[in-house]
Amino acid sequence: MPSAKDMSLNTATVREQWNLRQCIEGAARHGLGGIAPWRDKLAELGAKEAARMIADNGLVVTGLCRGGMFTRDGKVSQAALDDNKSAVDEAVTIGAACLVMVVGGLEPGSKDLGSAHRFVEEGLAKTLDYARAAGMPVAIEPLHPMYAADRACVSTMRQALDICDRLGPGIGVACDVYHTWWDFELEAQIARAGKDRLMAYHVCDWLVPTTDLLLDRGMMGDGVIDLPRIRSWVEKAGFTGLQEVEIFSAQNWWKRDPDEVLATIVERAAIC
Amino acid sequence: MPSAKDMSLNTATVREQWNLRQCIEGAARHGLGGIAPWRDKLAELGAKEAARMIADNGLVVTGLCRGGMFTRDGKVSQAALDDNKSAVDEAVTIGAACLVMVVGGLEPGSKDLGSAHRFVEEGLAKTLDYARAAGMPVAIEPLHPMYAADRACVSTMRQALDICDRLGPGIGVACDVYHTWWDFELEAQIARAGKDRLMAYHVCDWLVPTTDLLLDRGMMGDGVIDLPRIRSWVEKAGFTGLQEVEIFSAQNWWKRDPDEVLATIVERAAIC
Repeated sequence: MPSAKDMSLNTATVREQWNLRQCIEGAARHGLGGIAPWRDKLAELGAKEAARMIADNGLVVTGLCRGGMFTRDGKVSQAALDDNKSAVDEAVTIGAACLVMVVGGLEPGSKDLGSAHRFVEEGLAKTLDYARAAGMPVAIEPLHPMYAADRACVSTMRQALDICDRLGPGIGVACDVYHTWWDFELEAQIARAGKDRLMAYHVCDWLVPTTDLLLDRGMMGDGVIDLPRIRSWVEKAGFTGLQEVEIFSAQNWWKRDPDEVLATIVERAAIC
Repeated sequence: MPSAKDMSLNTATVREQWNLRQCIEGAARHGLGGIAPWRDKLAELGAKEAARMIADNGLVVTGLCRGGMFTRDGKVSQAALDDNKSAVDEAVTIGAACLVMVVGGLEPGSKDLGSAHRFVEEGLAKTLDYARAAGMPVAIEPLHPMYAADRACVSTMRQALDICDRLGPGIGVACDVYHTWWDFELEAQIARAGKDRLMAYHVCDWLVPTTDLLLDRGMMGDGVIDLPRIRSWVEKAGFTGLQEVEIFSAQNWWKRDPDEVLATIVERAAIC
């Protein structure tokens, strides 16, 4: 049964309440095993200082959120590639298990999903060259299909792994239950990913009803996702990392005392 | 280039404004080629009277919405099967091209998606026996993954066609762009469906941003779906039916004069 030490705090979960320093100290105080910073919070603190604090507090880094967004300029721009290289460097500095990629949606003003797919694969391939040299694994995070237009046109594990098959070593997937729980072939695709390509595992819950497409994720146990079952598939595939808790919740968890949020994560670890 | 006669009015598009009699007369008045009633409206008018009115107005029936909901009772209940048989009978009475199936989500209180899948397939198989004898094609409508919990645990064309492969003749898919546009393998799965199994084609649009998970669909042209491209795939697969317009829009189209809604559909046909 998982416990606090098996969980990692994605800073998005308390992003409205805490800066990265507070997230690190909070995660350690509540006995969590790891942390996963977003880059805005990492920039505030500085990657080197963050790395020092994370090490001092005995936390692992389950991932850096996020690289990607390759379609934002209507082409794979140098600016986007440079930004992704910086993300790789930051991930190396803090010793992240992987750099998580939210690849980008349709190009601005475009309806051409096929073009977006091609740009994304080009951007991933170019970033991967740099990441391989830096020794940083790159994890494509398929996002829920409801984000295909504006955030990520990679929507399923199958699609992400097809890309990984083409791009070769050093790239894999971040499997977030919020984005993937509905997929009838999730078990098969997790098995297909295997130990080397299953680079991160994110948990939260799908609420019924969900009142907002972006900011109404649930705490584990409050929704309909069969977390122990999906965890069993992930473990069977050889994943030995922590469960990263990433909850976007404007009306509930972002309004609570962050120590209460972390205490709830600890309490719910057993049902994950 | 499609025109009014290539379009069919799904009654959901003006469900807050018109009863079925008004929908039939309105569709004919605006030169649309067909109609697709929901069963609640059909029940109000009566299936026989509806069939007479539809024929008198020269409309085809692109589908009856809807059968399915096999998981609602925590098992495939006799009540659900009887309701689906009635739906088949009604579809026959009005000469529908198919009975559209929204299969149901998780069972009440359950997180077991695998169990829901099994009940759905059992319910479909039993209904299909009856539908085959009645000569009524059954069309599984994969719904967007954001409805997997509470409406349909069949979320992709691939998943629906895998079921069709197992159940044999007489069952196919209703492809609605709102539910499927994001899918990287949509073209391939439409081709896989082929002429015999592609039983209905539904259009509307995906708005960015989408403000409500259920009731914020867009009019064709107001969102990001590449409708001509998807239509080309559907035609290539051999589909010769009408494009059925199904728009759930609580804050916009349901608040407008329904004649304005239909005039807009006619105007937008050319970009579908």
